[in-house]
Parts: sequence; structure tokens; C-alpha cells
Amino acid sequence: MEKVVLAYSGGLDTSYCVKYLMHEKNLEVHTILVNTGGFSEQELQETEKRAYELGSSDHVNKTILDSFYQKAIKYLVFGNVLKNNTYPLSVSAERIFQAIEVIHHAKKIGAKYIAHGSTGAGNDQIRFDVIFQTLAPEIEIITPIRDLKLSRQEEVAYLEKHGVHYSWEKAQYSINKGIWGTSVGGKETLTSSNALPNEAYPSQLQKEKEETIVLNFEKGELIGIDGIKDTPVKNIQKLEELASAFAIGRDIHVGDTIIGIKGRVGFEAAAPIVIIKAHHLLEKHVLTKWQQYWKEQLANWYGMLLHEGNYLDPVMRNIEAFLEDSQQSVTGNVTVQLKPYHFTLEGIESDFDMMKSDFGQYGEMNNSWTSEDAKGFIKIYGNANKIYHNVNSGQL
Amino acid sequence: MEKVVLAYSGGLDTSYCVKYLMHEKNLEVHTILVNTGGFSEQELQETEKRAYELGSSDHVNKTILDSFYQKAIKYLVFGNVLKNNTYPLSVSAERIFQAIEVIHHAKKIGAKYIAHGSTGAGNDQIRFDVIFQTLAPEIEIITPIRDLKLSRQEEVAYLEKHGVHYSWEKAQYSINKGIWGTSVGGKETLTSSNALPNEAYPSQLQKEKEETIVLNFEKGELIGIDGIKDTPVKNIQKLEELASAFAIGRDIHVGDTIIGIKGRVGFEAAAPIVIIKAHHLLEKHVLTKWQQYWKEQLANWYGMLLHEGNYLDPVMRNIEAFLEDSQQSVTGNVTVQLKPYHFTLEGIESDFDMMKSDFGQYGEMNNSWTSEDAKGFIKIYGNANKIYHNVNSGQL
Amino acid sequence: MEKVVLAYSGGLDTSYCVKYLMHEKNLEVHTILVNTGGFSEQELQETEKRAYELGSSDHVNKTILDSFYQKAIKYLVFGNVLKNNTYPLSVSAERIFQAIEVIHHAKKIGAKYIAHGSTGAGNDQIRFDVIFQTLAPEIEIITPIRDLKLSRQEEVAYLEKHGVHYSWEKAQYSINKGIWGTSVGGKETLTSSNALPNEAYPSQLQKEKEETIVLNFEKGELIGIDGIKDTPVKNIQKLEELASAFAIGRDIHVGDTIIGIKGRVGFEAAAPIVIIKAHHLLEKHVLTKWQQYWKEQLANWYGMLLHEGNYLDPVMRNIEAFLEDSQQSVTGNVTVQLKPYHFTLEGIESDFDMMKSDFGQYGEMNNSWTSEDAKGFIKIYGNANKIYHNVNSGQL
Amino acid sequence: MEKVVLAYSGGLDTSYCVKYLMHEKNLEVHTILVNTGGFSEQELQETEKRAYELGSSDHVNKTILDSFYQKAIKYLVFGNVLKNNTYPLSVSAERIFQAIEVIHHAKKIGAKYIAHGSTGAGNDQIRFDVIFQTLAPEIEIITPIRDLKLSRQEEVAYLEKHGVHYSWEKAQYSINKGIWGTSVGGKETLTSSNALPNEAYPSQLQKEKEETIVLNFEKGELIGIDGIKDTPVKNIQKLEELASAFAIGRDIHVGDTIIGIKGRVGFEAAAPIVIIKAHHLLEKHVLTKWQQYWKEQLANWYGMLLHEGNYLDPVMRNIEAFLEDSQQSVTGNVTVQLKPYHFTLEGIESDFDMMKSDFGQYGEMNNSWTSEDAKGFIKIYGNANKIYHNVNSGQL
Repeated sequence: MEKVVLAYSGGLDTSYCVKYLMHEKNLEVHTILVNTGGFSEQELQETEKRAYELGSSDHVNKTILDSFYQKAIKYLVFGNVLKNNTYPLSVSAERIFQAIEVIHHAKKIGAKYIAHGSTGAGNDQIRFDVIFQTLAPEIEIITPIRDLKLSRQEEVAYLEKHGVHYSWEKAQYSINKGIWGTSVGGKETLTSSNALPNEAYPSQLQKEKEETIVLNFEKGELIGIDGIKDTPVKNIQKLEELASAFAIGRDIHVGDTIIGIKGRVGFEAAAPIVIIKAHHLLEKHVLTKWQQYWKEQLANWYGMLLHEGNYLDPVMRNIEAFLEDSQQSVTGNVTVQLKPYHFTLEGIESDFDMMKSDFGQYGEMNNSWTSEDAKGFIKIYGNANKIYHNVNSGQL
Repeated sequence: MEKVVLAYSGGLDTSYCVKYLMHEKNLEVHTILVNTGGFSEQELQETEKRAYELGSSDHVNKTILDSFYQKAIKYLVFGNVLKNNTYPLSVSAERIFQAIEVIHHAKKIGAKYIAHGSTGAGNDQIRFDVIFQTLAPEIEIITPIRDLKLSRQEEVAYLEKHGVHYSWEKAQYSINKGIWGTSVGGKETLTSSNALPNEAYPSQLQKEKEETIVLNFEKGELIGIDGIKDTPVKNIQKLEELASAFAIGRDIHVGDTIIGIKGRVGFEAAAPIVIIKAHHLLEKHVLTKWQQYWKEQLANWYGMLLHEGNYLDPVMRNIEAFLEDSQQSVTGNVTVQLKPYHFTLEGIESDFDMMKSDFGQYGEMNNSWTSEDAKGFIKIYGNANKIYHNVNSGQL
Repeated sequence: MEKVVLAYSGGLDTSYCVKYLMHEKNLEVHTILVNTGGFSEQELQETEKRAYELGSSDHVNKTILDSFYQKAIKYLVFGNVLKNNTYPLSVSAERIFQAIEVIHHAKKIGAKYIAHGSTGAGNDQIRFDVIFQTLAPEIEIITPIRDLKLSRQEEVAYLEKHGVHYSWEKAQYSINKGIWGTSVGGKETLTSSNALPNEAYPSQLQKEKEETIVLNFEKGELIGIDGIKDTPVKNIQKLEELASAFAIGRDIHVGDTIIGIKGRVGFEAAAPIVIIKAHHLLEKHVLTKWQQYWKEQLANWYGMLLHEGNYLDPVMRNIEAFLEDSQQSVTGNVTVQLKPYHFTLEGIESDFDMMKSDFGQYGEMNNSWTSEDAKGFIKIYGNANKIYHNVNSGQL
Repeated sequence: MEKVVLAYSGGLDTSYCVKYLMHEKNLEVHTILVNTGGFSEQELQETEKRAYELGSSDHVNKTILDSFYQKAIKYLVFGNVLKNNTYPLSVSAERIFQAIEVIHHAKKIGAKYIAHGSTGAGNDQIRFDVIFQTLAPEIEIITPIRDLKLSRQEEVAYLEKHGVHYSWEKAQYSINKGIWGTSVGGKETLTSSNALPNEAYPSQLQKEKEETIVLNFEKGELIGIDGIKDTPVKNIQKLEELASAFAIGRDIHVGDTIIGIKGRVGFEAAAPIVIIKAHHLLEKHVLTKWQQYWKEQLANWYGMLLHEGNYLDPVMRNIEAFLEDSQQSVTGNVTVQLKPYHFTLEGIESDFDMMKSDFGQYGEMNNSWTSEDAKGFIKIYGNANKIYHNVNSGQL
């Protein structure tokens, strides 16, 4: 029997796919769940158990926090990437690396087919398929949900027919969780005018009294919190716990999807937002004007290409080289105050802080230059404007 | 006697300049205060009275809210301009238009000299001088404060000597107020690590209970609040009153000054921040992806050139033409919740909302395309990546 | 009988379409040829005659030189648009405006269908379809050539069967001619390594002795040659005659197609290349540094979106507003020497030439600033670098 | 006696400086000539001899071709850098590396002063001073020519007075030669309208009959010509000999100087122009669309910052990292035809040529996708335009 690797999440759609691939396609189904931080150990075990119950020949849970961090999150931090100035790419980045793991697994076991549960109306199908087709053009993709467009009722009925009797209640809000944030969709996000209600968000306010923490960065990476060092992945998780208790990092992203229509989705991403804002502030002190300018250009583009499934375009590697190189002096501490629903950045300290140089303070006269120097500077600095207006008889 | 026009603010430095220009330079001093929204009617009258007491031959108070709005603020809103993603250019933009008014006045009265009170260590001297030298190269600039580098004590002593006996207590925080925000400098902003204390900000929290307001935009301009129409200038002022009661819009800007050193300054800009964020959200719904992309590129540059005193570079006019043209469909309402120290955007409604088209909802299958179309799209969309990896034997 | 409007060129593919639409689709065929400068009056008449012979119910020849110039060429000149620094978008721009005319015609006569002869492997199908679907979503598109993938032999046989007995010899090189250049494809352009032979190009060297001409620009438009004024369209045509006698403007474009694969095509575009290079030189004298910078950014993007069929994205109108506004002072004369196979730009003269200002000559000391001013300028100009190296202990 | 290091070229200005520094400043003069390819072995010896005759305590000739290549030219090739699409930065790049060598020498011998012969009206003073002040803020800069503004006659008279009796005839054209090109200034370049006469250029046409050569690139570097391998520096020199015999690579650069005025200068740079154009063509075949796009953005900026003396801004290192990373697959051969005064690129061959992939030829239907796929692609590709026009009732 030919093998198919199915990207399995434990939900109704991919459960349907297991049965469909077995009975309609006559395939040996190998399920894999690639965990980017959204599943607890217990949830992983339950999902595995259910996969076997459904008929999976072999189920694999693969947690990829470290490689996901090294291959994507690190650069999203280096680049302060917030799509449309808002969204930390919570879900979109994960799909890419899930797809890559699925491919690796499929190649390893010699599968002739890959299957996933995306519909034909979203971004995820594109992220999955482009990675699959690029890295394994010889493997065929099967997408029952996209092709059959069944209703929930039809899927449940089919499962029932094949002896699966779970209760598949539809959650009021569709939640997608990972280490770099949680997306929240619901009836409000289908409108343009309504915000998500408080209770739609997974984290709820637990603390009222503000707390001050210090984030420790080294070459752009979060290597500690309050002086206690740990891996960046662990620090993100710790910070998520600290900051989500304040219900920080909620917002709604409105953006242009790969398929050209507008999409709106809520998200909660306490740690990502706090890290990016703190990292950005540190950079304002230690990078030059043009480093900041070009980092922003490249990083926004990096975020866009990642979001749109073009992680394998080699320009991504080139941008990563730039971003990595730019972080040499992004070392220092950032003080953050966590408050209910928001936070403030108090300030930074860094050996590479350009405000600390011998060149004196902005606005205070100093020994680095005289008032004559300043006047000479201005005279020549203004030349281009003066010459333009000299030959163009004075508009304004 | 030759005439000098002095940009006069009522403070110690420019008061010193009045006497200095009279007694040391033997000039007929014409004072002018160009009000960009920072002075109340009463303050203007007091300043005028004091100008005459000091010996001004003629004092003019010139309020330029409408022209300041038309020539700059409007474009800062169109462009969602926040320098370094933070600072609405509260003070920097004003200087330009103050300088232009000073020049107009000097030309009108036939002054041979212009004077201002900037030091040699800041941005303002550059903004003033570049405008002056460009628009009136024939008028000579005098800058006593920059040239003499006197201490406060020396200035006070000089004024005393000339019979001026005001009390010149140094405020703990230096405040610069205008319609587009208030900057706040103090001992904390000279460090990198300390935040400004609560009391340093001019507005204090007056309301605890959240309030919901609706901002009405037409072609990118704030033409009403809660359906009550008024001029954009008036609406900014109304919104400032509403939002500053929540102590919204405070932050610290860390940036690269024109003279190449880093500067740090606090600011409070409730209305500008709320307007820009609301306007930006509306644009996410009504503009295409590439409109948003290029607007952001050009607007950030516009903000930078304005900040750095290059308002008269003709590229500024070209960018304004782009921005103006981009606002055709930026019409609609944005709902904002004001809360203590922060705010949230609830959503928008607009006739030009691209989420409302007949093309269906993101993530929901619809009649505009089939799953076969989606698969065809993806196949071709992924071509470039596939071809690259086909000829470059599979890195990753 | 339902009506179909067919974009008809007189070639084998669209001739096949006439018969196919009549006999297989049972439609009343209305042919239209939209001439963007590639057809002589005689060729138009012959094509019309043939259309009727094939069975067209009604044939229209529509020449759109002026509107094509106003809506596209003008901006391509303003923006000095050469795709990949090489290709003046000779063919790609035309397709857009041909499509728009076809739609207008279809709406006017109440056609239910539109047909064109593009294959499924090129850019043109996309340019046509996107315009059609955007401007007339209610009209259905029929593309026999794309759908049926017939060989030349099969098409000829089908035509023979329906009584059409023309001789359809395949030209060695496929030529696509318009006012903004001629593209040339052949067996060499299917390789990466071979150049087109001399005889593949439509124009051949007729003059050996160099000639000097002067191009007269006003607000960016070519309003005369050697002082003789005419419309820009006529001037382009005159210049094409002058310059193509020198076999100027040949090159090969290698680029990324909309479908993600690389494409290679030869072209000959004497007038476009000379105009763009001359216009660009004039701009170097009359525009500021940042005007040139941003024009280039926007114009390259404009060219890309136009090339890729996104003419109807509203960002195109915004960019046009910028480009138009940037041409206020692009007035003057450019002297060009035409030589066999190449040309040189001798220089320009313009009232707005910034080299002519009172500020003196580059490299010659003058009265605008002193050596002390220069030293003051440099001291402050270098601050950012100095501070960076001051806090980062001296790499290099 | 205190030591001064003088950047010495052998010309009148720096010869004057030797005597001036000895007699007026009472300094021990150490001369250094940093050769970036403009001096032959014999010229170096003559200059050295003259330096000692003038009174140099110690003269050093330092040739830095390899390090100049490694630190700058390599990146100018990777980035296809032509300022304003014209000028290969022939002179401007050299100044930077000359300045760095001068500083190294001054530090080595413990000099308290550095001197150079630039005037106060050009770019070179800025390039020199910014490097000096950044890398050795403790060393004082002396610039007699800038400060004294003497005429040639005065300089000659002063030298005569101190026993120096060379003949200092002023050349009709000022020539600045280096490995990356030669700049040519003269009375024509002070106008906007006149071209340089043929004889102003150092190389003259020696060959009439066209020659075909093949340039061999490996990871972006010119590692051979016609299959004969050598170092990139040697290959540049060989190519210069080959191509300058055809008088290729002449043009005039009109640009914005650092001091804000327009400057115009002729140049001859046969090898740089041929290499850059050939390298660029190869890249069109082996890089993706977005690699090309971002390379161009960054490289143009790199060229600008280098030109403007900001080589030490760390963003330059970040850009170099990007450029280096982008050259992985820029390996292959480019065929060039050299002709009198111009050249053509015939084509390329490369293992990484994306035209050679299995995905078929542009314009030819193939097995990678069907016409249905193409139609699905177009339907979704056009969504954004369609939706915009759907909600904005049809302009156009």
C-alpha cells in the first residue's frame, strides 16, 4: 500500500482526512503533528492516542521550538517584524516550518503523498503547497478539505459512518497557538467594525499591580530576564507567562492575504510584542541612523515574504545575513513596566549606547564643535535647498 | 536705525536677545511670536506686554494653526508619520513654519537682520537657518545665544543691568507645546535609562472609566468626532481635550539628530497619536497593499526631511502630491476606546472597505474561485522558488 | 446570436479564433485591432479586409497613439523607466491599453464574450485577463489558443477546412511592433548564450556618419527636435526615424515573468532609449538628489506593476501624481550625437540647471562659504561615524 | 620636532605643502603616496625622488591594489554600482582607502599631525577628514591649500623662494587615475553643455575590428578571461588593456556632491563598465527577482555612502554581508563583444541559469502547468485589483 503523510492537528478536518485517505484513497496514513509551541505535553499525548484510534499506521509528534527559533523567530526579533506595524506573524511563520518537517518526514519514510487539511480560501494552503512543491516536487499533494468543501455536518457524518464517535462541538472562537503568539478568529473578525470581546482571548487579566522587569539582550537575542540567563526559547516562554498575566499584546491585524483579499484576525502575543518593542528601543541607542533605516526596509520585506510563503526565496538568506551582521552591538538591558493591558519601556543601558559617547549631550553646547562650526555646517548643509530656490524663482 | 526681527517666545533666552540686539547691536528690535497652538490667548497677551516692556519697537503675535495644518499636519496624518515608529514630530514640524512666518514678517517690514534664540547644539538652529538662508539669502542671521554661550546667571545679570527684574526660575522640565504635541525634556531624558516621572507631563489622568468615540474621516482628514463636524484643526483640539484626560499619548523618542548625535526627548501627544493610529487602521481597509507600502516609504522619508529642516526640498512637494492622491477613498469612521494611559481601536466602517466586497470572506470558500483555481494559482505562484531550487541543488 | 469581441491581429492564431468562435461556439464575431503604433495605414486596411474575409461581422481598427502616450508613455519618460536597467517595456505596456480598448468596444456593442489569442505560457494572457476581469467582470473570456494548445499545422488545417487558404509561413523571428519599441523573438532568444543576428532586427544601419540633434523638453515631455515643435507622439516617431537609421537601441532583455520563470527577448527601441537617456541627463541637472532618488524608486515600481498587468492598482495613479509633480522644472535642451549602433549625450542647457546657480562651481573656492565653514561642516557631518567608533572600540 | 604625515601626490599643491609644513609649521614632514593603481613603477620612483628633494624626512610609496579590491571594488562589482546609473565611483572610492593608509602610517610613526592638499570646495576634503577624525581623533589635520587659497602663481613663487625650480605647467585636463577608472576634468566639464573632446581622454582608439572575449565569474568575482585564470586585480588590469584599446567606457557623470552643489566630471573606465554590465547580465539569469531588487537598493545606497565619505558607517558592513551572501550562485561565463567606443553582451552560460530549468521555456506551453492552472492563477492574481474596483465604482 502507498504511504501518505498527513499533517494532523487532532481537529475535525484532519481527523476526517485520516479516514478519507484510508477508505477513499486506500493509503497507509502516517500522521505527524509538528508542534511549534501550541501543544502541552498532555495535549500531544492525547492527540497521538486519537491518531491511532482513527487508524494512523504511525504517528509522530515533533516539537521544533529550537529550530523554529533559530530559523525564523531570531530574525523576526532582529528585524522588529510587525506586519502592518501590528502583527508579529504569530501563525504564518509557523506554517512554513511545519511544512518543512512534514516534508522531511515524508522523505524519510518514502511516502508518495502528502496531505493537509487547509481550505481553498486561505493563506495556509499556499504556505504548505509552495514548500512541499519546492522541496519535494516528486511527492503529490492531497487536500480533501479544499477539494470536497464539506460542511462540518458532512464530515461528522462520514466519521460516524466509519465508527468515530467523538463530540465535535465547534468552538466559538478558532484559536491557533504557538510560541510566537496565538491567533483568534470569530464572528467579530468577519466584520470590519467589531472588536473581539475580552473573553475571546486565551489569557485573561490576572494582575493589576504593575511590575518592572529587565530584558537582557546579547547581539540581538533575549539571553536573560532580570539577569537570570537561559536560552532564548525558554526566555520567550517565561516572558509570555509574566506578560500574559497582564493581558498584554492583544490586537487585531487587518492585512492583505496572498490571495488578494483583505483578512482580519485577532491575536494575543504578549512576549513577542514586548520583546520586539524592547529590542527596537535598544537598537535606537546602539545602531546608526542608516542601520535602522535599512534594517527596517529589509525586515518588513522579510516579514512579508515569510508571511506569503516565500521563505525559500534565496533573498531571505541574504536578508538574514544582513540582519545577523547588524546585531553585533545590540547588547544591553531594557527595563519594561508591565501594566494591565499595556506596558511601557523605561529605558536601556548598553556599553554600545551612542548617547554615552564623549561627544556630549544633545542640546548642550560642548567641546566637540563650536558655534562657528555649527554655522559652517548649516551653511553647507542648506546648499541644495538654496541652489534649487536660487534657480527656481521662489515658490512658497 | 537698522531693523531686526527677533523670533521671540517670552523666555529668558529671547528676552536676553531683545536687550542684546538693542544695546550691543544697536538695532530696532521687532519681536514676533508665531503661535502653532502652544499659547493661550492670555499667554499671548502677556508675552506681547512683556515684549514691549523689554523694548520691542513692535510686537506681533501670529497664530498659524490653519496654514500649519494645511501645509504640514495634513500630510503627517495622510502619511501616518511617526518618527522611528514613535514620535509625531511634535516640535520639529512647527519650527519650519515659524521660520517661514518670521521671514515673511522680516521682508514685509524691510528688516536687514533676523535673530533667533537657538543654541549651537540642537536641531532648531538648523531648521531656522536653512529656511532663512533659502528664502531670504539677503537677510543676515544673528544668534546671540549660540554665539555667546552664556549661562543663565549671566543672562539674568545682563537683563538686571538693563533694568529688567523678572523672576526667571528655571522650570524643572522644559516644555514645548504646539497643536501637534508637547515635548518634555528634563534630567531623565539626558540619561538613557530613566523614564520621565508622571508629573513631568503636562496632562494628568482625570478619567478612569473608558469612553468610546468615533472619529470621522473624509479623504484622510478628520472632519468630525462622533458625527459632529468641524474643521480638522478644531477636531484635533477637541480630541486632544478628550484624550489627554486619559493621559494618552505619552512616550519617549530616541532619535538621530541632524548634527549626528543621539537625542532623547519625552512627549505627550494624545490627539496626534490617536488620529494617526485610527487613520492608519482605516487605510488598511481601503487602500491596496502597494498603496500602503509606498505611502509608508514616502511618508517616513517626508517625516525625516521635515524633521531635518529640508521642508523646502522640492521632493517634499512631490511626496505631498502622492499622499494627497492616495487619500481619495480614505473616508469612513473609526471607533476608538479611550482608557487610562492607552487606547484601543475597535474597528471601522467605510463605503470603500475592501473587506465588504462581493469577493467573499477570507478563509471561507466562495464563488469567486474554485479549489482548482487555488491549486493553479499556487502552482504558478511557486514557480520562482521551485525553479531556483531546481537549479541550485537543494540547500536548506 | 451572442456577440464576442475578438482582439484580432491578422496572424494565424487570431485568424483561427475567428473561425473557431463562429463554428464551435456559434458566436457573432466582432474583430478589433487596437493599433499602438505597429501598423501602417496599409497594414490596417489589409487586416480589416482579411477579417471580413474570415467572417467577422464587424471589424474595427482603433489607433490609440495619443491616449497611449497620455496614459503610459508620458510616465515612462518622466520615470526613465527601463526594466532591469535595459528594457523600455516596449510590448508589455501596450497590451494593457489594447485590453482597455477591447473592453470599451465590448461594452459598447453589448458583447457577452471577449476572446484573445494568447497562450497559457506568457505574460500577455495575464495582462489581458486581469484588465478584462477587473473592468468587466460580467463578460466571459474565451481563449481558444490557450485552451486547445494546437500546433500551427492543426490551426492551418482547421482554417483550410473552413475555406481559408492563405499562406501562413512562419517568420523566422516573431516581431511585435509599437510606438514604444519592437520586440524580437527567435531561436537565439530561447537560449541564454546567443545574441540575435544583425538581420533579425527590423531596422538596419543606413548611416555611418554621425549626426547631432537637440531634443527639446518641456516639463518632462519631448516637445520638439532641433527647435521644431510638434506633439510628443509625432516627435517620438520622427526621432525613431532619425535614430533607427543608426541601428540604435538594440538589446536583449532578460527578466522575471509574471508566471515566475525567466524570459529573454530581443528588442529595438531607438527613440525610447534615446529619449529616456536624454531626459534622465536633463533631470540630473534640474532635480535635487532626493527627487532623483525617489523618482527612481517609484518609477521602477511603476514599470514593474505595469509590466505585470497591475495598471489598475490605484497606487499607479498615486505614482503618476508624484511623477507629474516632479517635472515642473524638467525643461531644457539635450544634445545627442547619433552614431552607428550607439549614441552619446553631449550636454544640456536649461534655465533650471542647478550647475548655473550663483553658488559657484564644484571644486573651485567661492564666496558662498569659507574654508572654516567647510571644516565646521565636516566636523559635524562626521559626528555619527565618530560616535559609533567612539563607543565601538575601533574595528577596521 | 613634531611629525606630520602628508598625503603626497607629486603635484604642485602637495609639493607646496611639503615646504609650507617645514618652514611655516616647523614640522618634520613624512610623505606618503598611496597608490590605488594610477602610478607606474617608474612614476612612483620619480615621485619618491622628488619628495626627498623637497625635503621629506621619509617617503613611503604604498600600493594597495589587493586590499582596495577586497574592501571596496569587490562589493562595487557584486552590487553593479554605477552612481546615477553612470559612474563607477572611479575616484571617490580610492580616497577612502588612501585616507585609511595615511592614518595607519601616521599612527605607526607617531605623527601628531596629518596634512592633505584638498581644497575647501570639493568632496575629497570630506572623505579624508571624516576618515581621519573617526579613526584618529587625537591627530590634528592641517590643510594648507584649503586654508590659504593661494593661486598657482603664489605657490610656484613660494617654492621658488625655497629653492624649488621645477616647471609646473598646468595640464589642460586634470586627470585622476586608479585601477577602477580615470576621472577627467577640464573647461568643458565646468559647463553643462559641452562634451569632452576626444583627446581629453587618456586612452585613444587603437582597434577598429571587433573582438569577442569571455569573462569568467565565480561567486561574483572575475576569476578569469577567456578561460585563463588569474586574480581579480590582474584580470581587471588585463581587461582594461583589452577594452581601452577600443576607447570603451567613456562618459560624463553629473551628480550631487556632498556639499550640496552639482558637479560634472568626465571619466574613462573601460574595465569597470564592462565588468559591471557583464556581471549584471549574469545575475539576471541566476538570481531571483527579489534578490535583484534588494541588491540594487542596497548597492546604490552603498555606492552613495561610499561616495559621500561614510565608508565607516557600520551599515556598510551589513550591506557587504548581504552582497557577499547574494553571490553564491553568480558563477558562469559572459560573452562580450568589444567594438569601437562601445560593446555588446552576447549572452551567458551558467550551471545556475534559471532559464535552463526543467520548467520549460517562456512562451511555450509545457508540462509544469495547464491552461486551467494559468486561468486559476490569473483569477486569484487579479483579486486585489478586482476588489478595489468593485468597491470604488469604476474610475478609468
